[in-house]
Amino acid sequence: MSGSYQKTKVGIAGVTGYTGEEVLTWLLKHPRVELSYVAASEDVGSLANRLPRWADVPGIPACEGLNAQRMAGSCDVALLALPHTQSMAVVPGLLKAGVRVVDLSADYRLREAPVYEKWYQHAHTDTANIANAVYGLCEYCGEELKQAQLVANPGCYPTAVSLALLPLLKSDLYSGGTVIVDAKSGVTGAGRKVAAALQFSEVNENLKAYKVAVHQHTPEMLQTLKDFSGFDSSLVFVPHLIPMNRGIVATCYVPLKAPSTSAELKALYETAYAQAPFVRIKAKGEAPETAQVAHTNYCDIGVFADESGNTAVVISAIDNLAKGAATQAIQNLNRMMGWPETEGLLR
Amino acid sequence: MSGSYQKTKVGIAGVTGYTGEEVLTWLLKHPRVELSYVAASEDVGSLANRLPRWADVPGIPACEGLNAQRMAGSCDVALLALPHTQSMAVVPGLLKAGVRVVDLSADYRLREAPVYEKWYQHAHTDTANIANAVYGLCEYCGEELKQAQLVANPGCYPTAVSLALLPLLKSDLYSGGTVIVDAKSGVTGAGRKVAAALQFSEVNENLKAYKVAVHQHTPEMLQTLKDFSGFDSSLVFVPHLIPMNRGIVATCYVPLKAPSTSAELKALYETAYAQAPFVRIKAKGEAPETAQVAHTNYCDIGVFADESGNTAVVISAIDNLAKGAATQAIQNLNRMMGWPETEGLLR
Amino acid sequence: MSGSYQKTKVGIAGVTGYTGEEVLTWLLKHPRVELSYVAASEDVGSLANRLPRWADVPGIPACEGLNAQRMAGSCDVALLALPHTQSMAVVPGLLKAGVRVVDLSADYRLREAPVYEKWYQHAHTDTANIANAVYGLCEYCGEELKQAQLVANPGCYPTAVSLALLPLLKSDLYSGGTVIVDAKSGVTGAGRKVAAALQFSEVNENLKAYKVAVHQHTPEMLQTLKDFSGFDSSLVFVPHLIPMNRGIVATCYVPLKAPSTSAELKALYETAYAQAPFVRIKAKGEAPETAQVAHTNYCDIGVFADESGNTAVVISAIDNLAKGAATQAIQNLNRMMGWPETEGLLR
Amino acid sequence: MSGSYQKTKVGIAGVTGYTGEEVLTWLLKHPRVELSYVAASEDVGSLANRLPRWADVPGIPACEGLNAQRMAGSCDVALLALPHTQSMAVVPGLLKAGVRVVDLSADYRLREAPVYEKWYQHAHTDTANIANAVYGLCEYCGEELKQAQLVANPGCYPTAVSLALLPLLKSDLYSGGTVIVDAKSGVTGAGRKVAAALQFSEVNENLKAYKVAVHQHTPEMLQTLKDFSGFDSSLVFVPHLIPMNRGIVATCYVPLKAPSTSAELKALYETAYAQAPFVRIKAKGEAPETAQVAHTNYCDIGVFADESGNTAVVISAIDNLAKGAATQAIQNLNRMMGWPETEGLLR
Repeated sequence: MSGSYQKTKVGIAGVTGYTGEEVLTWLLKHPRVELSYVAASEDVGSLANRLPRWADVPGIPACEGLNAQRMAGSCDVALLALPHTQSMAVVPGLLKAGVRVVDLSADYRLREAPVYEKWYQHAHTDTANIANAVYGLCEYCGEELKQAQLVANPGCYPTAVSLALLPLLKSDLYSGGTVIVDAKSGVTGAGRKVAAALQFSEVNENLKAYKVAVHQHTPEMLQTLKDFSGFDSSLVFVPHLIPMNRGIVATCYVPLKAPSTSAELKALYETAYAQAPFVRIKAKGEAPETAQVAHTNYCDIGVFADESGNTAVVISAIDNLAKGAATQAIQNLNRMMGWPETEGLLR
Repeated sequence: MSGSYQKTKVGIAGVTGYTGEEVLTWLLKHPRVELSYVAASEDVGSLANRLPRWADVPGIPACEGLNAQRMAGSCDVALLALPHTQSMAVVPGLLKAGVRVVDLSADYRLREAPVYEKWYQHAHTDTANIANAVYGLCEYCGEELKQAQLVANPGCYPTAVSLALLPLLKSDLYSGGTVIVDAKSGVTGAGRKVAAALQFSEVNENLKAYKVAVHQHTPEMLQTLKDFSGFDSSLVFVPHLIPMNRGIVATCYVPLKAPSTSAELKALYETAYAQAPFVRIKAKGEAPETAQVAHTNYCDIGVFADESGNTAVVISAIDNLAKGAATQAIQNLNRMMGWPETEGLLR
Repeated sequence: MSGSYQKTKVGIAGVTGYTGEEVLTWLLKHPRVELSYVAASEDVGSLANRLPRWADVPGIPACEGLNAQRMAGSCDVALLALPHTQSMAVVPGLLKAGVRVVDLSADYRLREAPVYEKWYQHAHTDTANIANAVYGLCEYCGEELKQAQLVANPGCYPTAVSLALLPLLKSDLYSGGTVIVDAKSGVTGAGRKVAAALQFSEVNENLKAYKVAVHQHTPEMLQTLKDFSGFDSSLVFVPHLIPMNRGIVATCYVPLKAPSTSAELKALYETAYAQAPFVRIKAKGEAPETAQVAHTNYCDIGVFADESGNTAVVISAIDNLAKGAATQAIQNLNRMMGWPETEGLLR
Repeated sequence: MSGSYQKTKVGIAGVTGYTGEEVLTWLLKHPRVELSYVAASEDVGSLANRLPRWADVPGIPACEGLNAQRMAGSCDVALLALPHTQSMAVVPGLLKAGVRVVDLSADYRLREAPVYEKWYQHAHTDTANIANAVYGLCEYCGEELKQAQLVANPGCYPTAVSLALLPLLKSDLYSGGTVIVDAKSGVTGAGRKVAAALQFSEVNENLKAYKVAVHQHTPEMLQTLKDFSGFDSSLVFVPHLIPMNRGIVATCYVPLKAPSTSAELKALYETAYAQAPFVRIKAKGEAPETAQVAHTNYCDIGVFADESGNTAVVISAIDNLAKGAATQAIQNLNRMMGWPETEGLLR
């Protein structure tokens, strides 16, 4: 459809999960990508056998059982949308074969294996490559993405939270005190797994916090905030489950050194993200809404000072499957390949 | 059906709103109440003409256009589920006629008329009776309810927030610093009004904060926290709209003087509410869920310390139409009449 | 609370399922019932251990692992809210011990064991008692309920469909041709089981027919329609899954012998149900809504003729857990005991 | 991005409605289209002022107040997503100026003005052009679309129903008797209007039929079925409102001349739609689901015979905003322009 580009061969592992399916949706639209390989945990044949939505849609290879060697033989870049602990089993082989990897699991996000093992209850079997992974929070990455062989795609909550907090934590306005993050997520954040607590009748017309102050994304957020802002204070993170499919809102409360106004805070954010094509700062007094970022790579941020001016309230909204996973992975792909950052992501 | 009590005549004003309808539901079950009068903004005839759900249900008087004099002539106690600013028009007449009143609107909750006028953008026309109103947060009221002629029923958010915060704010554990309240509510909290932003297609599959740090329930919370705990620090209150009909979760973050554990905090709450029949403290590590309090007068509270021990996370869940409005009003009625506090509220 | 009645001891088996929990809700309110026994598939101790909603609620016995002998020793009447095939294992023992039984499963609804075995894929192990069971569609039962030792409580779909169809099928207006029933149900109709297809993210924002023309309630409907109206034509039954918790709408299309009007049809239904306290006929031009019967024992019915007058459209709405299961069981209990039919069911 | 095509200038009127916004979404992706004009009922400036979702998205012209002359000056083709009765005010001017029009309203769907006036309660002011309009049900249109100056885009229900019924009604299998259509729609089908009955709390956890046998799409269906199959029997159409945003399921019941099997019926449909790129026939025993067609131009159809073989059950599912409105309009645009039918519609 799109003219004269030499297309890059890209494959997806884990295409039958919610995240993998979202990666598929976007890669099919990408003008510089040839979707050359898709795999699930077993040989599915036509993807439509598992996901009837995709019947008759052109451009989707047969869905194989994941095989690292076959993937390496078919792809220039591999996007891995696998459950945690499964990526580390295939990444070494892919890298050795010269395939560049964007891993959407948590396996390469934490730089220290013991931290990974504590929070994910699983021994890390590829510690060698952890150090080689670039943490792909595009808005804060530099040229390192261009050379990266392995990119760890940020988690959904860490994406929303880091984008909301970093400008303020990096600034002189932040007091250095405890930061509160009250996050809310739709149900696809839990993946396409079957659980009693995720049955429709249990989630619908219900609302609850979960994993209060013990969510496995907490160390990832701490690492990221430290890396990009030097943050070394306390972060209290409480996620909530919302009866909807998609979307995350992270409502962040940051203590300020001296009273500030909403206008000052907003100006700080506008400057910080002036060059970021996928971060939008809301107008004064307006909070972001998940429906306004659904099925997009945008992160919308609303910035407020409380009445006393001593606390900043920064609220971010993303689509957990898009900016929180699949489209952010493609944003990383664009940066790795030297393509325009917005390629294939604006429509 | 219920034996030998002399029944008390109770009336409802505003019966066609969500709150009024919920009051109706519960009064019909109350063994000591005769529902003697129901009124809406206009003469409806059979309530079923407006709310077909109630067709053929016995025990409901014809629904009149609200008339204070007729209400006074028919009731010993009046429950007013009117929009804000409408209660103050009928309360003086009812009180003068010797009728006791539980007002579910905001009209008599704030002790200072200017504060009311600032937050509700409306001149208060019955300042004389503001001072006479007892703020009916039953768990913190004493014998004054027994004599009260006028009870101001707490707002839905203030109920959830006050019950969550007061034990800690009253204790030595609280540092005196800024308290964060991140609240989430189902859509009936907005009442049965028609608004573009509340259309199904706008709310469903959407999530957003609203009135960030400017919600009109803030001064009520500040007044209540001050009254019952001496609180005089900053409170940052951010409500969110959740795509469900009923339920509030208030997630409260309180800075502690010295590191504490979840077990210590939980013990504090268990002691504080040992005598409160409608407050339940969750087991260690468990957060409350709105579905578990839906259609009940319970407030469930989960108590946590963060990893550092310096921040307490206290989470309360209520049904905004029940404990946050109608059943709390009946709990107040029970206390006013000297009946058992749980009468008519347990099933 | 309830005065001078000698209370009847009633037990619930299967109290942790959606239906069993709904039976519990209503029995706790029933003025003539002492809840004397509750059981699940295993020893739960306090029911709150499994269903935190019930913490602190007075009047609930400890929840045992189901034991027919212990149930027989504790109850005058047993309400069985068990999965299909489990009722037939305990009913013989209960009956032998003189306990009267209302069975909410499908085990005793079909009079012919082979039909049961075909549709439920399970050998019937208590064929002896099938013949003794009274099919408890109260609106069409007579005095036999008063003597019944075993009542088979109708299924949720058959309840909605039979109440909608019978007046017309019994009348001279029905042509004798094929009857179409297009039914829609909320998700609790599937019970509290865990299934991939019932996960929130799969059901929410989705709509589908299922078991098209092969639903296991079809033979029950055919038997009931034949028993009460002599129906022996074709019934095409197609159920649909709706993204909501509770509620059934059955939209029924009946061919007429000669053109008729909505008014004539409505008059027929009003006459048919003049003595039925729980069937309400909607006003001309109005369709029933599930929200108007939620948490009640009502069945609302709207009656229409199409433009040609040759087809009647009869639409019924019930709450699948209440009139479609739990409250209908209590209506049966009332009739068995000779109590007023509405006892404990109106509020 | 799209290479060497000469782009066609296309404009949208009514871009702030749900349908208009959906047209926008798809036109932005269309490789042969330059979006040259967008308009709402008033001058909005940046579309983001009204619909913040579109902030920063490139390629959207300023949103003007609709002006037929300005639209004519900016567009080769006009897509009108206006409320009924508003299209007929601008179509004459657009046609006169040589602009080709796809009208998504009902204004030009019915060939006889009195029928329109009866069902839409509004005098038709452009009867001259009714005769010139081509009814754009692409799967049944021929070459006339290529020359069409004015295309009436089918309604959402008629699209789902016609695609489901036509193969069977055209066949020898149909008995000629009454056809029943039981349809279910998500809430966006009602448009972005504000109504008490469409408030979240009224629709959520509720289910109801509406406009029983009197829906304004009925004459459009009758006309279409007659045009393409000679149908002249009775059609009973009953729509239902489902608590979800998007999606229609039409469950159609057709009497057969002689007993038939599901396999025979399925074969008929597969043949009928062998050349239709956007109609998919489900495998034996499978019903379509709206989630599988959401945000696509597909119509999925499941075909069943009932047990007797005398009734066919044909179930279609579409996205009401896509195949039921916006993407069907683009399918028409593709056909009008002689472009590949699937251009811009597959991803």
